[in-house]
Amino acid sequence: MKATILVRPKPGILDPQGEAVQSSLRQLGFAVDEARVGRVIDRELGADAGAARAELERACEQLLANPLIESYEIALER
Amino acid sequence: MKATILVRPKPGILDPQGEAVQSSLRQLGFAVDEARVGRVIDRELGADAGAARAELERACEQLLANPLIESYEIALER
Repeated sequence: MKATILVRPKPGILDPQGEAVQSSLRQLGFAVDEARVGRVIDRELGADAGAARAELERACEQLLANPLIESYEIALER
Repeated sequence: MKATILVRPKPGILDPQGEAVQSSLRQLGFAVDEARVGRVIDRELGADAGAARAELERACEQLLANPLIESYEIALER
């Protein structure tokens, strides 16, 4: 089973990387209101979806995301 | 319309951030085969899906991804 984890800065949290992308896109002539940049993490996992999700949530809380300033989203694919 | 762009290192390309995540997860007791880390970029766009996709592809080629070592994936949401 393939897991994709998206980690994003929470709304309102300063995002310097997003601001850099936004101003560079504008300089290239794209009309951009706002751009936010986060991380995507791909992992291979065992076959049990329930256990996989619980394990991934623990991994997010402990290492992959900073829950103070980031939110995460887990997608599982067979 | 909301656009989500996923930029990932291509298979076979060295991914030091992914390796760091992988070894840290192992140290925390998670069974991990491989972890790969990329970027997620969120943007707000105009309503025309065809034009939006073409514009996002140009933005990826010009700025958001390095096509030599990274692949990108565009998802549009109404």
